[in-house]
Amino acid sequence: MTEIATPATDSLSRTPWDMKEYQPHHTGTPLIQGEYDASLATLVWANGEQASFPLIWLRDHCACDSCRHPQTFERTFMLLDDAALTVQQLSLESGNLMIEWSDSHLSRFDAGWLQQRRPSDVLPETPVPQSRAWQLSHQTHVTSFGDYMAGGEARLGWLEALCRDGFAVLDDGPSEGGEIDQIAATIGPIRATNFGGRFEVYSKKAPNNAAYTPIALELHTDLPNWHQPPDIQMLYCLANDADGGESIFGDGMAVAEELRQRNPQAFQLLAETPVDFRFADERTDLVVREPVIHLDASGKVIEVRFNNWIRDSLRLPLVKMQAWYAAYRQFWSILREPAFRLHLKLEAGQMVAFDNRRVMHGRQSFDPTTGRRHLQGCYVDYDMVESALRVTARQLD
Amino acid sequence: MTEIATPATDSLSRTPWDMKEYQPHHTGTPLIQGEYDASLATLVWANGEQASFPLIWLRDHCACDSCRHPQTFERTFMLLDDAALTVQQLSLESGNLMIEWSDSHLSRFDAGWLQQRRPSDVLPETPVPQSRAWQLSHQTHVTSFGDYMAGGEARLGWLEALCRDGFAVLDDGPSEGGEIDQIAATIGPIRATNFGGRFEVYSKKAPNNAAYTPIALELHTDLPNWHQPPDIQMLYCLANDADGGESIFGDGMAVAEELRQRNPQAFQLLAETPVDFRFADERTDLVVREPVIHLDASGKVIEVRFNNWIRDSLRLPLVKMQAWYAAYRQFWSILREPAFRLHLKLEAGQMVAFDNRRVMHGRQSFDPTTGRRHLQGCYVDYDMVESALRVTARQLD
Repeated sequence: MTEIATPATDSLSRTPWDMKEYQPHHTGTPLIQGEYDASLATLVWANGEQASFPLIWLRDHCACDSCRHPQTFERTFMLLDDAALTVQQLSLESGNLMIEWSDSHLSRFDAGWLQQRRPSDVLPETPVPQSRAWQLSHQTHVTSFGDYMAGGEARLGWLEALCRDGFAVLDDGPSEGGEIDQIAATIGPIRATNFGGRFEVYSKKAPNNAAYTPIALELHTDLPNWHQPPDIQMLYCLANDADGGESIFGDGMAVAEELRQRNPQAFQLLAETPVDFRFADERTDLVVREPVIHLDASGKVIEVRFNNWIRDSLRLPLVKMQAWYAAYRQFWSILREPAFRLHLKLEAGQMVAFDNRRVMHGRQSFDPTTGRRHLQGCYVDYDMVESALRVTARQLD
Repeated sequence: MTEIATPATDSLSRTPWDMKEYQPHHTGTPLIQGEYDASLATLVWANGEQASFPLIWLRDHCACDSCRHPQTFERTFMLLDDAALTVQQLSLESGNLMIEWSDSHLSRFDAGWLQQRRPSDVLPETPVPQSRAWQLSHQTHVTSFGDYMAGGEARLGWLEALCRDGFAVLDDGPSEGGEIDQIAATIGPIRATNFGGRFEVYSKKAPNNAAYTPIALELHTDLPNWHQPPDIQMLYCLANDADGGESIFGDGMAVAEELRQRNPQAFQLLAETPVDFRFADERTDLVVREPVIHLDASGKVIEVRFNNWIRDSLRLPLVKMQAWYAAYRQFWSILREPAFRLHLKLEAGQMVAFDNRRVMHGRQSFDPTTGRRHLQGCYVDYDMVESALRVTARQLD
């Protein structure tokens, strides 16, 4: 065991070393002591905190230009290649850690960066909020188009609501067409599907999808017949003057939780029984076998697949069939209760964004002879929503 | 119980009723007997087979123009709405089933279609093959560009190999640029990521990714820092004249299975321990916490996430750290064994396609001063590969 102690340095005068991270890290607390043995280095910060790091961890996390690419910041150091994992010298420089390895390679670690990465069971804080079920009484998060596009706190709050509630609204936007592309560009690329990239929702002469007719659309999730249905759907309203055509939304997470309360067996059946969803046309045949309710390992509802149009032939043993139908109908009937349905007649210049993996959407029928109804829609990846949220948050730090 | 029996009809003269399916169904065996009670209809086919269907199932699967949309074929019948689920009359017409419900609604079911949907635990046959691990001794599936583009059996075989092995090659194609778009168009839309849609792989002056440098690339999967990494990657070679630059592939499923054999504890640790993957740049911050090896409920390896460049700071309790590093190094060292590495110097006009969720790719370094190396790449969704496979198969039926 070799021990090195240096006097505490003034934290304010300490220059953080570049660890090739975009995420800012604490710089307030310098190291005041460091020691090591054959496998661990043990460090003490000026505020009294102490932690041990495996030497292999420290070597693996060296941020010098030959271990992390100076432009991409990616790790170019290959742990498996012949690298010294024994320390020749450990020292503190201006409260930061410097290690010279037995092959003379030099590694520098910023004290604050190390402090944030102490070996621990505790997950680091994340700016992405946890999902939370909601009902009609929920206050929808609304931000103006202009404030959102300007970025900063307004955009951060909107993206947080989208991650937490799976639902958020923009309003007071223009309605010239194409605004949805500008909004998508603040998040990420449009996720294209068998129905294309950006789509136009209005009554079409030769529809290949019920959305392109004027009929009422029962609450549903889109493309549950994909292994990976699109995550976030955005619908931007350019015109909504026809009679009818009110949009309806319902949180599948809330409906599933309500079913769990009222009828645990029915809930379990929908969560455990994969059923087929299928859409086919001349050029496409997309089919998956998945349950209506998806749970994570802890039993939390993380996804709902509900779409009566493209539910395929139900293939189950006879003994399970009646019980499955009963559970499915009970889920559906909860979904029809007013407490679980949010009605919203979209106005030109308004946009809704919702998490298609949990929030269902639908609409009342409309009469295309009484006026125009035209929405522009697209999907974006949840990954990119989280990314936009993190980048917005770090710019505010 | 009401029973109806009709004489067996000549199966060859029987016209199948339109069930609004693109998938062809058997038409050979007529029904010869049908009976029903308050909840079930029991049918007998001419070949002696017998099955019972819940009445609710039959009502739910009515394929008439008011229950299934005549253009989109989607189910417009809403089970939850007030519909009669009791039979007024059940009859056989030319060996097919006709039911008149108590509200006078009429449903017709083709005998062969019903036969294929008998309530059962047995899954219907699917043309999509199961995945299968492979090593170097594996015979790579190669199809010529021309044969693939012509469709039919050649395309079907290539798509089957891609689903089964997660790896397939096209050769003898042109190298004018953009061929990859033609190939993608036979499958589905390009899946765009934070690196854009179609990407160009050559040595760039300001790379934001190690792929765009001339350095060697250790075997890896792309974008394991996404919740949903892209599925299928295609790399089309336009030029490969520089010294070096050989491509390398390894099946993560095979490597993981080998680790399970040699060191079950290490395998389990990599399958149970989520670690962080992260890529950040000025506009992006994509991070997920996922294990290196993903298993399905039966313990089968279904996904591997391995990418040393964007493995983020390892955040684990100290007691787990050394064991995780040891397991990770053992996985990596198996990956370095020649038996698990397929080398392929791509030629102009050749393309590899591989399942990025399981097959790792890499390359040897190349010397950009000795010649040109230029690949065009893109991702497509596995969902659309399965769809293309099914459509190709049904066209051959």
